[in-house]
Amino acid sequence: MSERTKVRRLPERGVYDQAIINEILDANFLCYLGISTEHGPVVIPTLYARANDSLILHGSTGSHSLRNAKSGSPVCVTVAEVHGFVVARSAFHHSMNYRSVVVFGAATEIVDVEEKLAAMATITNHMLPGRWDECRRPNSSEFTQTSLLRLPLDEASAKIRSGPPKDDEDDYALPVWAGILPVRRELGPPVPDDRLIGAPVNASVTAAIAKWARPGLQPPG
Amino acid sequence: MSERTKVRRLPERGVYDQAIINEILDANFLCYLGISTEHGPVVIPTLYARANDSLILHGSTGSHSLRNAKSGSPVCVTVAEVHGFVVARSAFHHSMNYRSVVVFGAATEIVDVEEKLAAMATITNHMLPGRWDECRRPNSSEFTQTSLLRLPLDEASAKIRSGPPKDDEDDYALPVWAGILPVRRELGPPVPDDRLIGAPVNASVTAAIAKWARPGLQPPG
Repeated sequence: MSERTKVRRLPERGVYDQAIINEILDANFLCYLGISTEHGPVVIPTLYARANDSLILHGSTGSHSLRNAKSGSPVCVTVAEVHGFVVARSAFHHSMNYRSVVVFGAATEIVDVEEKLAAMATITNHMLPGRWDECRRPNSSEFTQTSLLRLPLDEASAKIRSGPPKDDEDDYALPVWAGILPVRRELGPPVPDDRLIGAPVNASVTAAIAKWARPGLQPPG
Repeated sequence: MSERTKVRRLPERGVYDQAIINEILDANFLCYLGISTEHGPVVIPTLYARANDSLILHGSTGSHSLRNAKSGSPVCVTVAEVHGFVVARSAFHHSMNYRSVVVFGAATEIVDVEEKLAAMATITNHMLPGRWDECRRPNSSEFTQTSLLRLPLDEASAKIRSGPPKDDEDDYALPVWAGILPVRRELGPPVPDDRLIGAPVNASVTAAIAKWARPGLQPPG
């Protein structure tokens, strides 16, 4: 844990257990990549997947932010998932139940052909489990147009808020509803492309529907 | 539109219409606030609401990033919503249907008491419509512990991707399933707090369930 990784605000919500950090990262696909530029910070939403002790960030070689990030300057990648609105009796104690991960570090571009193909497969299969073996793989032009970065998870921390509202003792007597309003995510049903030649829904799509459903309420783990 | 606001990557997805930008901002509640520090960029998820031509960012006076942001240095605030996985016949053409907004600017702290109370009400009512009039309002200690920033929307742009996969012409003959896998968000049912003294679910909670449901598929508008 480095100094910048330490959770300063509400430190009781800070988590440094790598297994929990990995679990949160594996339960999401969209990260917010922050870079510093001469005009100030830039935050770009991008797809990612975890590969062992690194994040793989996906982008285009035309992407300004990915070009900047791969120069080796420091980046910050943030992932957050909301499980519920915490509805309290007082305005102040309203909150969210959530899990988030913040990763600091320097990203490097994956240039080795085999490693880059493996990274592409990792991203594709993270979104749609097994998709890499179902679809046409990148040709050389597509391969060149895609940029993949690796960011080590050495400097990562998580924050988690779960459970009911924590109201001031006096406020429990107020006739105001309080509790949790769960936020759920569901995928599907799949909408076939108009030009489909009769191919049935692939296994990767069915797997993704199960993988990315999130029931809301308490964060798991 | 400033130079840094211009969407460089896939410029056909760029949108500068303020009405659409506002619609995307109003349809979400969690933003990713990017700041530059001496150790590099930091990206923090935080709640926000739009008030006319500004964003109101909510935080704690103990928050490192909000303290930094309110010093007037440049910040970047990014909001993204995913409507569907775009499942293509080739690995390369897999994509997401989404809408995102990126705002650049300098944030200022809201110090005027009346303005700060109004900003608190704006954030609370954005999450739970009408909640400000249902719950106990902040006392002076809570008021002081909360920090609210205003960020003008002068430098904002949106990106939108919608519609079916765009495969290479030859690939339409492949026997691979392709289409859209919608991503839906649903709230509820409300889970009452254990210490509730019999208060029924408030109107703001019912309103939030309707407001924050997102059917997936095509972005509206």
